[in-house]
Amino acid sequence: MKELIGSPGTISGLFLRISQCAFAAASIGLMASATGFSSYTAFCYLIASMGLQVLWSFGLACLDIYAFRRKRDLLNPVLVSLFVVGDWVTAMLSLAAASSSAGILVLYARDLNFCKSQAYLPCNRFEISVLFAFLTWLLVSISSHVMFWILASI
Amino acid sequence: MKELIGSPGTISGLFLRISQCAFAAASIGLMASATGFSSYTAFCYLIASMGLQVLWSFGLACLDIYAFRRKRDLLNPVLVSLFVVGDWVTAMLSLAAASSSAGILVLYARDLNFCKSQAYLPCNRFEISVLFAFLTWLLVSISSHVMFWILASI
Repeated sequence: MKELIGSPGTISGLFLRISQCAFAAASIGLMASATGFSSYTAFCYLIASMGLQVLWSFGLACLDIYAFRRKRDLLNPVLVSLFVVGDWVTAMLSLAAASSSAGILVLYARDLNFCKSQAYLPCNRFEISVLFAFLTWLLVSISSHVMFWILASI
Repeated sequence: MKELIGSPGTISGLFLRISQCAFAAASIGLMASATGFSSYTAFCYLIASMGLQVLWSFGLACLDIYAFRRKRDLLNPVLVSLFVVGDWVTAMLSLAAASSSAGILVLYARDLNFCKSQAYLPCNRFEISVLFAFLTWLLVSISSHVMFWILASI
């Protein structure tokens, strides 16, 4: 089978996992440093979801490093099924978290115009945090598709 | 190849498409009949996204009926690739729309307690509409996975 970009145990796979970790951590950092985020359920959910993403991607990055150094093959059906389910669940949670936070931001910035009228709201931080969450989702969905493709091929 | 539940051109596939259409149409109907929905970008986006879903699912339901009556086989790679991309895009749009609307509803119902204090808001209608949108997403994501699986197998 041709090796796919982003397969587990390859440099591209490791790079994908590390990028997911980095974007998710940046999203958490920005959101947690914005004052008053804890009054919004959606923003707390974004932090929880990105936290889960960091744990998942970090775990798989470690597994990639292990497989790469020991030249182990991670492509057995049970392991790949686990990766598929995990990636799919975390991708859905990330997209849901990013979208629900984005929904609130659009409400505040456009519909109610709160970001201009209530200057104490750290809208910029919220926006960049949500942007990072969307980037995380994009990378996880790439991983998820690659894994699903591998699962269907082995 | 074993025939999968929900494959194009089968009764289960047709049933899945009709259910997607029905739930998406119910979501649009409930949202559009709620007063004041148009002040919220996220709710307008929900209607647009569910509208696209109705068109897509209805088109594929017609194709399923055609294939079923004429005993045609729809499983050629080009057609299935098109189904995969379409299902994936509409599933993502549906989840994003449902989540962003849910984010606003949670903000209003829990964080700000607007649903109790501002009785004119039709929160119940919004909630049921979002619930239908989530059900639509669930059905589309099933279709999307079945299609992706078929594409990887043919």
